[in-house]
Formats: sequence, structure tokens, C-alpha cells
Amino acid sequence: MTGVLYLMPNTLDFGVTLSESGGPPDLQEVLPLGAIRMAARLPCWVAENAKTTRAFLKRVNEVVPLTQPLQAIVITELPRANKGAPALSPGSLQTLLAPALAGQDVGLISEAGMPAVADPGAALVQAAHALKLRVVPLSGPSSMMLALAASGLNGQSFAFVGYLPVDAAARTARIRELETLSRRAQQTQLMIETPYRNAALLNALLNALNGSTRLAVSCGLTLATGWNRSDTVAAWKSSPSSIPNDTPAVFSLLA
Amino acid sequence: MTGVLYLMPNTLDFGVTLSESGGPPDLQEVLPLGAIRMAARLPCWVAENAKTTRAFLKRVNEVVPLTQPLQAIVITELPRANKGAPALSPGSLQTLLAPALAGQDVGLISEAGMPAVADPGAALVQAAHALKLRVVPLSGPSSMMLALAASGLNGQSFAFVGYLPVDAAARTARIRELETLSRRAQQTQLMIETPYRNAALLNALLNALNGSTRLAVSCGLTLATGWNRSDTVAAWKSSPSSIPNDTPAVFSLLA
Repeated sequence: MTGVLYLMPNTLDFGVTLSESGGPPDLQEVLPLGAIRMAARLPCWVAENAKTTRAFLKRVNEVVPLTQPLQAIVITELPRANKGAPALSPGSLQTLLAPALAGQDVGLISEAGMPAVADPGAALVQAAHALKLRVVPLSGPSSMMLALAASGLNGQSFAFVGYLPVDAAARTARIRELETLSRRAQQTQLMIETPYRNAALLNALLNALNGSTRLAVSCGLTLATGWNRSDTVAAWKSSPSSIPNDTPAVFSLLA
Repeated sequence: MTGVLYLMPNTLDFGVTLSESGGPPDLQEVLPLGAIRMAARLPCWVAENAKTTRAFLKRVNEVVPLTQPLQAIVITELPRANKGAPALSPGSLQTLLAPALAGQDVGLISEAGMPAVADPGAALVQAAHALKLRVVPLSGPSSMMLALAASGLNGQSFAFVGYLPVDAAARTARIRELETLSRRAQQTQLMIETPYRNAALLNALLNALNGSTRLAVSCGLTLATGWNRSDTVAAWKSSPSSIPNDTPAVFSLLA
């Protein structure tokens, strides 16, 4: 009997409050008890980041005691394909899943939100399918879906396109391409940026898009200090919002 | 002081277990306590379906007692734009938000999953932004994100395209168009179907797609009887899976 690969959602708060209100928010604000219970019993994890996974498990332990001591829980980091290292090879991924082949349940967890969405975990999930392991995704926060719902933009057709180019000219060209795509298919386009470039991306969007295009920003999702604004580009320009450079944000547009 | 529009995720089980194991699954398996607590205190709802919203609130009440009796809670159905009725007018939507303008918090809830995603709720969210109301999305299950994570397909670029045409020739053309789009942008394409057409859509996908294209199906997400399969079209054909005609499914492809 092989183990199951559980896809464990993480919070969106990166284990810290960005306000002055003290420790991290209660896990139960954003994670179902079902997922917390599962996290408390898994003996084995594949993680985007081992350190933040240990911090996550400490928060789990405050709600549901861990079945075994934290030190006894095996946490293996997913190899990083995007830092000059060779791409994730099927062989290395199958090694990470060896405990599941041996009958243990394994959790996959990322730094924030759903694993395998906007992070490198998908290759592990594909390896699990190739090994005929059972894959079970657990409910939890997804910044994309929270941002899309909060945008009020078309939720019946949407695309997530990841990061935009950093180079200004290439970024402007990409924004105009996305606006055209959005207009043609009436498809909401969602994108993210590293927080310290939030203001640069917002400026680039306001400069490149038509005034009638709708632009939504969700900043600090699930945080008490979070906000969601959805307006035409013209309205954003005539009444600007300042955006922090240390808080994750999701940007959405509909032309 | 105006009220807040809370976007309340619903379960994906439609209030029933599709197995023989008795009543609906525990709300806490899929919904965070934070969302359940909020649901228990909201005096006013806009709902895709009032009847299923009352059933949802009864389940909430089993975990966190409702602040006021169910009969005292105001539930207004969102006008249906897609049934020959006139499109949702800004005026009618602003009427639905009158309680929020008068200071009461309002919840928006759909039949399943995140409201305003793959359902008609987005117009209400846009109306709330136009009225400068605060919009707060709450964490919970999203069949799209669960299916995408479970697919192991590209989670860094994906699109949800809703329903495919029912007409066989138009459906095949649309599937081929999506395969081309997916190949060109390396973008996972997600779609849904009414459950009784699950088998027809699966067949159409297997017949229209290239053998090397990857196809994933998530059926009965969050249910004990649920399953997720991700394979090449060639593998699906040589080893078919039967798909039930009474259980919601999400289909994903990556060429």
C-alpha cells in the first residue's frame, strides 16, 4: 500500500504580521481544521523552504499537537530549477517520493498559498502521477482566487501569467499584449511581482494601459491591513493609491 | 460608516455526500474557522441560491452558533443574467448593496467554491467597488486551484476558459484552439462541464487532442470518493477511466 501525496496550502502571511500587532495571525483564520489535522500527522514533507515549513508546523502544533516531535519529521527541500541549477530531473523527484512508495504519506508545501500553483512544485505532482501515487489537494488560501474574486473582473474567463519582464520596454510591450489578449477574449489577466517592485509595476500598468481598462490590485491578502481596489485606469490615475514595497500583491486587468 | 462586502467561499460538496456515508461532510474539513465565524455573524447575504445558502448556514450553526435566528437573516438572490432575463443592471445591484451602504456587513456566496469565480457574482463585487465599499475575500476551497495543483501541469501560467460549446463540431474546434494556445504559451487550460456531460467532454478531449498532450481530470474534489488523474492523452486512451455523471469535475490540458 503506497502513501498519498497531500498538497498542503500554506498561509499567505509568510509567518509574520506586517502590522505592529504581534505574532503571526491564527492559522484557523485561513486554514481549515481538516488541513491543520492532516499537517499535524504527516511524517514526511517536500517543501519549497524547510525553515518556513518548520515555522508552519509550529503554528500547526498550537492548534493540533503534532503526532511526532518536529525533529522527527522529515522535511526535504525541492531542488531549485530556476537558480542556475539543472532542471528538476524525474529521477531526483522520484527519490523525494520514495517514502510514499514505501507507504508513508507525504505533504507538499510551498512558501505561501497552494503548492504547485505559481511555484516550482508542479514537477513533483507530475512525478507522483507517473508513479501512480494518489494525489489529494487540500483546501486553503489561494492568493490568485482571492484576488480574482475581490477584483469583480471576469471570473468566468481568466488567466494567470506570472511575472512580467523587469526591463521597462519589454514590460510595457508585455502589458499591451496582455491588454489586447484580455480585450479579444474578455479574459481577466492576473500577474504578480516581487513586493519591492510593486510600485514600479503599478506605474507601468497605469502608463501602458488604456484609461477605460479596469485594473484591480489586492495587497496583503488575508492580512488585517490588506486592501482590494478595482477601478478604471483613468480613475486610478486621477486618484492614486500608494502601494507598500514589503507586502505581496496581485494585479489584475480586464480590457 | 459603511458595511463590508465579504466574499464567502462555499463548500464544493453541494451540501450532500455523493457516497452512501450519510449527511454532508464536516464544514471544518474545507472551511477555515475564521470564515465560519464570519458566516455566523453576517446579518445579510446576496446569494446565487437562497435555499442552498440556508442549508449552508445550518451547517455553519453546527460549528459556530448563528448570531441571530436563521429566519431573521436576510438572503437575497442575485438576479440571473443568463436565463433570458435582462443583464444585471448597476441599479439593481446597488439595491442589493443598500444594507452595506446603511452600515451592515453583507456576505456574497455562491453554490460552490469562491463567489465571483466561475459564477455570476463578479458584477456585484464591481458594484461594491463603484460604491467605494470595502471588499474582503475569505479563504476557502476553490475547485480551480485544487484541480490545477492536483494536475501537476504548469501552475506558473494557466487559464480558466469556463464551459466548452455543446455542439460536437464546435466543441472539437474549441478543444483544438485551446491545445494550440496551450502549446504556444505553455499555458495550462482549465475547463468545467455540467456533470451529466462529463463523459461526453472526456471523450471529446481524448478524440481531439494529440496523444502527447497532457490531460488531467479532478472529479469530486474534497469528497472522500474524489480522484485526480493526470496523464498523456495516449495513456488515457490505452487505459481509460470511467467518470461519473453526477459529480462535478474540472478538466485541464497542457500541450
